Amino acid sequence: MLFKEKLKEFKPIFYPKSIAVVGASSQENKMGSRWVKGLISAGFAGPVYPVASSGGTVWGLKIFPDLKLIPGEVDYVIASIPRQAVLEFLDDCIAKRVKAVQFFTAGFSEAGKAQWRELEQQMLRKARENGIRIIGPNCLGVYCPEHKIPCGPSPRGKIGISGSVGFVSQSGSIANKLVEIGIARHINYSEGVSFGNGIDLDASNFLQYLAADSKTAVVGAYLEGTRNGRRLFSAMKEVAKTKPLVIWKGGRTEVGAQAAMSHTGSLASSAAIWSAAIEQAGAIEVHSLEELTDSLLIFQQLGRYKGGNVAVIGGLADGGGGISVSAGDTCMEAGLELPALSSKTREQLTNLLGEVGSILHNPVDASAAQFHGLSTLFQTIELVAEDPIIELLLIQEDVDVLLAYSSGEELKRMNDFFVEFRNRQNKPLVLVLPPGSAEPERLSIEKMLLEASIPVFCTMERAARAIMSINKYFSSR
Amino acid sequence: MLFKEKLKEFKPIFYPKSIAVVGASSQENKMGSRWVKGLISAGFAGPVYPVASSGGTVWGLKIFPDLKLIPGEVDYVIASIPRQAVLEFLDDCIAKRVKAVQFFTAGFSEAGKAQWRELEQQMLRKARENGIRIIGPNCLGVYCPEHKIPCGPSPRGKIGISGSVGFVSQSGSIANKLVEIGIARHINYSEGVSFGNGIDLDASNFLQYLAADSKTAVVGAYLEGTRNGRRLFSAMKEVAKTKPLVIWKGGRTEVGAQAAMSHTGSLASSAAIWSAAIEQAGAIEVHSLEELTDSLLIFQQLGRYKGGNVAVIGGLADGGGGISVSAGDTCMEAGLELPALSSKTREQLTNLLGEVGSILHNPVDASAAQFHGLSTLFQTIELVAEDPIIELLLIQEDVDVLLAYSSGEELKRMNDFFVEFRNRQNKPLVLVLPPGSAEPERLSIEKMLLEASIPVFCTMERAARAIMSINKYFSSR
Repeated sequence: MLFKEKLKEFKPIFYPKSIAVVGASSQENKMGSRWVKGLISAGFAGPVYPVASSGGTVWGLKIFPDLKLIPGEVDYVIASIPRQAVLEFLDDCIAKRVKAVQFFTAGFSEAGKAQWRELEQQMLRKARENGIRIIGPNCLGVYCPEHKIPCGPSPRGKIGISGSVGFVSQSGSIANKLVEIGIARHINYSEGVSFGNGIDLDASNFLQYLAADSKTAVVGAYLEGTRNGRRLFSAMKEVAKTKPLVIWKGGRTEVGAQAAMSHTGSLASSAAIWSAAIEQAGAIEVHSLEELTDSLLIFQQLGRYKGGNVAVIGGLADGGGGISVSAGDTCMEAGLELPALSSKTREQLTNLLGEVGSILHNPVDASAAQFHGLSTLFQTIELVAEDPIIELLLIQEDVDVLLAYSSGEELKRMNDFFVEFRNRQNKPLVLVLPPGSAEPERLSIEKMLLEASIPVFCTMERAARAIMSINKYFSSR
Repeated sequence: MLFKEKLKEFKPIFYPKSIAVVGASSQENKMGSRWVKGLISAGFAGPVYPVASSGGTVWGLKIFPDLKLIPGEVDYVIASIPRQAVLEFLDDCIAKRVKAVQFFTAGFSEAGKAQWRELEQQMLRKARENGIRIIGPNCLGVYCPEHKIPCGPSPRGKIGISGSVGFVSQSGSIANKLVEIGIARHINYSEGVSFGNGIDLDASNFLQYLAADSKTAVVGAYLEGTRNGRRLFSAMKEVAKTKPLVIWKGGRTEVGAQAAMSHTGSLASSAAIWSAAIEQAGAIEVHSLEELTDSLLIFQQLGRYKGGNVAVIGGLADGGGGISVSAGDTCMEAGLELPALSSKTREQLTNLLGEVGSILHNPVDASAAQFHGLSTLFQTIELVAEDPIIELLLIQEDVDVLLAYSSGEELKRMNDFFVEFRNRQNKPLVLVLPPGSAEPERLSIEKMLLEASIPVFCTMERAARAIMSINKYFSSR
């Protein structure tokens, strides 16, 4: 019941029937005009209303000189106007019975002067007294692939595939990167939001929404600060109770915190307190955009895996000795468990590969299979997967080296096998495809594997850490 | 004088006049035949002699049934033969007055049985008594772009640009990856070697050679173990005295060390002892292939920079707030110094960019420049570089986001500026180009910047760590 109310409350924000963009103009390069173009490019289904006192047209749409002159209802307004004009603008929103306003407009509390901090408070009071929700100011607002709302004022209006990952970001540039990396790595979002200064709706509100939203199965957050730690902690707990929640706290260091102060007006608070709160809430802490997106990807792709023993396999074509050694170091240092294979499996592997030139511990160096052909490599992988002690297979595939030693056709057969094998049995595969001298080929294999729901990482370290985030989440259940 | 002797001693190894490949055959897919093909593909200048008792031809070359039947002198032999045949084969090498033999052949001490350990010792004695140097066994041997010797039995015979970075690797697969990444990232090698079990020539010998070699300005090493720590320590010191030396020790953990034992027969020794020895020798320790190649790249590109204060610039097109915050955290956590800009620079930046929407500390969020055009961005970068407190500029360029917000032409102008600016003044630029949804464009910009001697990294963390390795090296001088 509460969940239903929460979803209803946020419907005009993530799924508005219409959007007005105030601060558009017939100059196509103005930020407001770019927002309009982005919505059109993305294919937003409802009406888009440009608004500017100038009137005229932009991108073939009529510009309304006044919000109140728009004929239909307006659920959601994107405001790209000077900060001096915000109070008057809010009066128009009240008159028009607008449900939510997102302020791209910046220069409030984050500017560090009393005058603008006071204006921010006046905005908030006016909106609250009149039942209007504010997203921002100083933010890019909503990203909703299903409803075709792109992230920010990009005229391209890029939209990824609609999926199950929700995000909350205090920063617009991080939101933009989350979207771009999502498109590149098949991290498919349900809803996302960048809320900037978050004077009305903030991280807590959006986290509660994503907890309630049945479409969302995993949640990621980039946060710089909070005005109400207790509320945020309880919202984090609410999400983490039912869904993996991955949190990246920005402004952990003196330099970072100073930047955060100028960025979203966030006051510094101890990184250690944040870490403790995140852990106690049952969420996972990460420390960079890479770690955040890696974790979101692996949670999205490996829905059924609840953590556990890993077998590492390397040396798919050439020698894999050094790669096995370093994979062993990297996985152990990340905290993964790489148990010895059972004696039965090792015996079977020795029969298959011989004892020279292969490391038949864990990590497994499968390079001796090269003397027998691909089917021996496939058998090696199957034997390891059949070992009852193993719950996940982590495979390093060096595309450039493989192409130096074998044909493109063999490489295709190998990756077709991974996809087929992943679908035929229950133990998840995770692939490491390190960048090198054959990037076009590597990227096309990465795409194919990601589309088949096999998570792909560019380094063993990032793969190991991502798997660890699953282990951590489920070990705290 | 000593240097000259060292160089002369290794000439037949890195710059042999002729190479025989024993274990080639008319079957083109045999390892020996692949070595032959690789040398031909790479364009090795001297004669290549395939040798196999079968006789016949391979890749258009006559196969000599016996090493002794080769008409000309043979400096260097690549042996890809069964381990049972090595002693008899060495007799042929003695008769032919071969100078050095590289054994691809494996299955000796690393196989863990007394019989093969003993055979390894017999090989060594026979070679030593007859003045033949052994590289390996269980290795890929030499890589020398200038002399067109490719790395390992890849028929493609890939060769990068000849340059100033030397490497020593106890692992063939790591050597392969070093070469591939070198080709991809313009890490240009002088000489490299994978020496496997290193029973005769080992890390110490090759390090001493690279210390003496005037072509080599930076040295990287992947090591799993040593039989003579004192000798290795003194060789490391010898290199680090005059050139940056970056060392990656594999087998730091229990799992890694077990793999190393099976791989190159290296006994475990404490990771802490290694770390202490590396530091005391004045070398830099790294922990992964990524860190190793990152460090080699930055030492190669920034020859004149001796470490010091860094300014970070982000937000080249869209908002850069969150990116500045996280760059600040990342750099501080890596140990970099990001000093406040001088008040003069900040005043100039405020005049240029205004006070709204930009973070004019360090990291600098240049995003407000977008309202004024590219020349304002260029001025921002110039102002920061002119600040006397700053010694290096670290710039984050998000190609996918830039392409969403601006045109490909503007992107080109921006990167042309980086190249022009780098050449016009003395403070080095380091670029971070994070992967995302515009990989072909990103890779082409990366290539252009690398060719202009601007080091490029894919994450802020890797860039910061690489810069730190310069700081560390020069602070221990």
